[in-house]
Amino acid sequence: MADRPQPARAAVLGRNQYGKAETRVVKVTRDGDTHHVRDLNVSVALAGDMDEVHYSGTNTHVLPTDTTKNTVYAFAKRHGIESPEAFAIHLARHFTGTQEAIHRARIRVEEYAWERIDAPSRHSFVRGGRETRVAQVTYDGERFEVLGGLKDLVVMNTTASEFWGYAKDAYTTLQEDYDRILATEVSAWWRHGWTGAADAAGTEPPVWDESYEQTARHLLAAFAGTYSLSLQQSLYAMGARVVEHRPEIEEIRFSLPNKHHFRVDLEPFGLKNDAGDGAVYFAADRPYGLIEATVLRAGADARIPDDMTNL
Amino acid sequence: MADRPQPARAAVLGRNQYGKAETRVVKVTRDGDTHHVRDLNVSVALAGDMDEVHYSGTNTHVLPTDTTKNTVYAFAKRHGIESPEAFAIHLARHFTGTQEAIHRARIRVEEYAWERIDAPSRHSFVRGGRETRVAQVTYDGERFEVLGGLKDLVVMNTTASEFWGYAKDAYTTLQEDYDRILATEVSAWWRHGWTGAADAAGTEPPVWDESYEQTARHLLAAFAGTYSLSLQQSLYAMGARVVEHRPEIEEIRFSLPNKHHFRVDLEPFGLKNDAGDGAVYFAADRPYGLIEATVLRAGADARIPDDMTNL
Amino acid sequence: MADRPQPARAAVLGRNQYGKAETRVVKVTRDGDTHHVRDLNVSVALAGDMDEVHYSGTNTHVLPTDTTKNTVYAFAKRHGIESPEAFAIHLARHFTGTQEAIHRARIRVEEYAWERIDAPSRHSFVRGGRETRVAQVTYDGERFEVLGGLKDLVVMNTTASEFWGYAKDAYTTLQEDYDRILATEVSAWWRHGWTGAADAAGTEPPVWDESYEQTARHLLAAFAGTYSLSLQQSLYAMGARVVEHRPEIEEIRFSLPNKHHFRVDLEPFGLKNDAGDGAVYFAADRPYGLIEATVLRAGADARIPDDMTNL
Amino acid sequence: MADRPQPARAAVLGRNQYGKAETRVVKVTRDGDTHHVRDLNVSVALAGDMDEVHYSGTNTHVLPTDTTKNTVYAFAKRHGIESPEAFAIHLARHFTGTQEAIHRARIRVEEYAWERIDAPSRHSFVRGGRETRVAQVTYDGERFEVLGGLKDLVVMNTTASEFWGYAKDAYTTLQEDYDRILATEVSAWWRHGWTGAADAAGTEPPVWDESYEQTARHLLAAFAGTYSLSLQQSLYAMGARVVEHRPEIEEIRFSLPNKHHFRVDLEPFGLKNDAGDGAVYFAADRPYGLIEATVLRAGADARIPDDMTNL
Repeated sequence: MADRPQPARAAVLGRNQYGKAETRVVKVTRDGDTHHVRDLNVSVALAGDMDEVHYSGTNTHVLPTDTTKNTVYAFAKRHGIESPEAFAIHLARHFTGTQEAIHRARIRVEEYAWERIDAPSRHSFVRGGRETRVAQVTYDGERFEVLGGLKDLVVMNTTASEFWGYAKDAYTTLQEDYDRILATEVSAWWRHGWTGAADAAGTEPPVWDESYEQTARHLLAAFAGTYSLSLQQSLYAMGARVVEHRPEIEEIRFSLPNKHHFRVDLEPFGLKNDAGDGAVYFAADRPYGLIEATVLRAGADARIPDDMTNL
Repeated sequence: MADRPQPARAAVLGRNQYGKAETRVVKVTRDGDTHHVRDLNVSVALAGDMDEVHYSGTNTHVLPTDTTKNTVYAFAKRHGIESPEAFAIHLARHFTGTQEAIHRARIRVEEYAWERIDAPSRHSFVRGGRETRVAQVTYDGERFEVLGGLKDLVVMNTTASEFWGYAKDAYTTLQEDYDRILATEVSAWWRHGWTGAADAAGTEPPVWDESYEQTARHLLAAFAGTYSLSLQQSLYAMGARVVEHRPEIEEIRFSLPNKHHFRVDLEPFGLKNDAGDGAVYFAADRPYGLIEATVLRAGADARIPDDMTNL
Repeated sequence: MADRPQPARAAVLGRNQYGKAETRVVKVTRDGDTHHVRDLNVSVALAGDMDEVHYSGTNTHVLPTDTTKNTVYAFAKRHGIESPEAFAIHLARHFTGTQEAIHRARIRVEEYAWERIDAPSRHSFVRGGRETRVAQVTYDGERFEVLGGLKDLVVMNTTASEFWGYAKDAYTTLQEDYDRILATEVSAWWRHGWTGAADAAGTEPPVWDESYEQTARHLLAAFAGTYSLSLQQSLYAMGARVVEHRPEIEEIRFSLPNKHHFRVDLEPFGLKNDAGDGAVYFAADRPYGLIEATVLRAGADARIPDDMTNL
Repeated sequence: MADRPQPARAAVLGRNQYGKAETRVVKVTRDGDTHHVRDLNVSVALAGDMDEVHYSGTNTHVLPTDTTKNTVYAFAKRHGIESPEAFAIHLARHFTGTQEAIHRARIRVEEYAWERIDAPSRHSFVRGGRETRVAQVTYDGERFEVLGGLKDLVVMNTTASEFWGYAKDAYTTLQEDYDRILATEVSAWWRHGWTGAADAAGTEPPVWDESYEQTARHLLAAFAGTYSLSLQQSLYAMGARVVEHRPEIEEIRFSLPNKHHFRVDLEPFGLKNDAGDGAVYFAADRPYGLIEATVLRAGADARIPDDMTNL
């Protein structure tokens, strides 16, 4: 990466990046007495010509992480925060465009939802807790890769879930179940087809907020609407519904922990505890099944890393 | 506490209790195709004639914590879960009424909210994340003390908050602020007047779910509706509103961290960042101001311990 | 508390306090090339004549929490940090002594341990993770109450623990166990007899660091040395050992979760799993037994609140 | 992946895996009165011919996650736990070798350290808190990929760290610093050259426990011994030292958050706070600099994913 010849080294630098993580920025917009809020957690990671700082501590190419933090705040004021994706695109373009040594910028964002309190004052909010919206924008100076996603979305079907007909070996003791609770905490990342590249000139970017809302809505609908014979089947149903309804999305990857709800054995106390009568369940913490998969638009490339949904 | 004379000891047993903490019980109720869910985390603590088990390990008086866990599950099936308070009252009465050595039972409950997914299936839910409902019932065989409460409720006013006119000493550098964000994460416990005691015969217990919902609503309304000169003032306004509107509540205690949102200094970048124009804020983690107080119905006793709201 | 007559109110202010919580202060001391570190998390809570700020938002009596934070930093420089207790005593005396409206100060401290890295450089440290030391000093202008303590100390005996002979009822299914693992995460707070009061003139305060180290050592030794028939017995043994060996300590309160290690049933796989042969255990998370008790020097008052050890 | 022709689908399955995560297994070994403990958190992930379960819910190829949990326990008894790596190798070989549909198994392990309590009893332990050891074994039926690693290792140099000479732009306000604290929480994964493949017959696997201990020791020594002009330089120094001293390791990847310790400005209180005199620092939480990089043996492939160290 560096211009001048390196000494022969036994240990060489590989892929690397640096930046300020978890800058917590809140932007208030006032429209008369009506206020609006966007509340983000922004992590900047920059890569480029960084051999020297690793090998010798020479910081010539290093824009301080403190500066990347300042930039986040200044851009929130200068450009506002239209959406996590749009804000991250601004930032990614800035870092690669203004620092010669920076060849790639990756901006990760979490967004926390605020709902308006049902009150006369138009400046009062309560934090919604359902899910956390996430986004990641990577830019190499030519193409953007824009990922959207969510985490912490906990869903449950109290019936319409079975599990049977599975492989059995000497260590299998599980009983088949024809009416179980299916619950999971959805972590999902999806990739948009839009890249903003010159060869795709004229292609408009998605309307990010609407795209997010519709995608989240489809995930819920697919989970609720699937009669499930395995969590894998529900996963695919969620992914397929997104791919089929949202043309701007090329692939989606999930990490779905099986939040086990075990029916309690109440026979010792002379009580039946059948699912059909409304049962009592033990909600277990660990261990838990973990189902991970990508669903792709036919013909699309798979680019989301395996562990992305476990971050 | 024990019947027979104790040897003289240099170290004696003081207040004590034991039980199974954090039993996670989920009860599904089926009304045809429409399902209902109650999802609790139940902690049982029993006290009584427990000298021997501490001094010598003799377990004669010790109902195993495993048994208290089983009882939680069996009661959920046998009695259902009408509300956290009603369920805890059942349990507390059971333990003190059936074990001679148990003189006092304290049941703590967290309840997690599930909202129905907007879908045709009436068995599909998404976990709501706004706040966690809590309750505590203590019973000594004669009187119940029933506390309700909530935690994790994060609220914010983006204006209508000032802070000035405070005491100053040699260590004071804070600038006065006439338009700031006020945000906090509400933890509150409130005590109901109802005790179920014989000398209060005929007194009906509150309708617990409705009481909770209305109290939570009043907390939000008071926070939103108060033009605040200090977080203490907002705290008192919330407490007073509950006391004035909910006759079943005698006292309420709060722990309110001041979730500081500092206006970022953007002058070095040639940007003004005035609150009135819609500003950019840094949402800080630590340290944070912490305001704790009890608000009482005039004439009522203060019985909620100081640190109850920090648990 | 306020000087002038209050209007009749339906809702009145009860016990209250405020201050800056979790100020993270690190003090380095240099002794030539040898450095020393003290790393604290300090929470200040002040109480006094605070009616006005709650009732009307008048901040005249309110020293800002920002100022209490500044004071923590300035005192760390001015006085150094000799020990958590000594540092908290300085702070508590300062706030009650310099602000007329402040009648009581309570300082809570966590201390994080740093161990020297085994290397030539005398300024290199690794954070020790065994336990977190805690302290709390309360001062009302006349007497100090000094609590020490620890949390996060996880201990285990892999044998020398039994549990049998307990009470049984209709919900008891637990099997007796004559060789089990006993594991817990110790949370303990202890109260020192020293108050620094005028009527106890001449009484020297404990040497805080040495007192802490010895007390922690006794806790470990008592846990390891007790053949346990119940966790309550181990709790008392730990408390009694401290009371008997440390004359400066009047009482000690514990919260001991029973970190259950269940022997796995391997019979379905043709394997015996007896404790005596070295068994395989499932380390469970929730639910867990929770044992809480105070052990007192005979004749001493019990002043540590019940839930102190659950904070 | 499946044998028979798939219908044309708009949404197709991509990379996927499943298994039981976070099985908490504790193995006690008795050597007379001296006990030994290994305490693991094991996560199994299996991949192979899994199209059907996703597309239609047909579970024929799905060995239940409950079975993978049982296998962990049974193997702990049958084979013992010699080291996290050896145990994971056993498990990975088993799953790929016994289930035709399983083509790849990945076993992730965390290990928690227990230290012997200084007491006569040889069965008493206290959990060490310094770091968490991690390992990951992936097996495709032919080659093992064995990663070792650690996390939660917090280290600090109170001097011998500078930061200056960095790039500056319009958003740079940071002051250069010639004597600062450098602290980080090390997360590292390293890859062993050993694969156990047939074409490498005769190659012995590393002695895993010794390899781990020496690698961890080198990380501490390199951090302590580096006079640092940037955290990147310290990172490379740590990686290079491992590569140079441990021939069994081919590459190592780090995620190093810069745990900022800011010198507090005490000038307003008439106090100097120079590093050279022993200063007072504010230990900040968020935001934080984050430095990530791989260091490779010259000529080795880089196979550890970028985000591995952020899991």
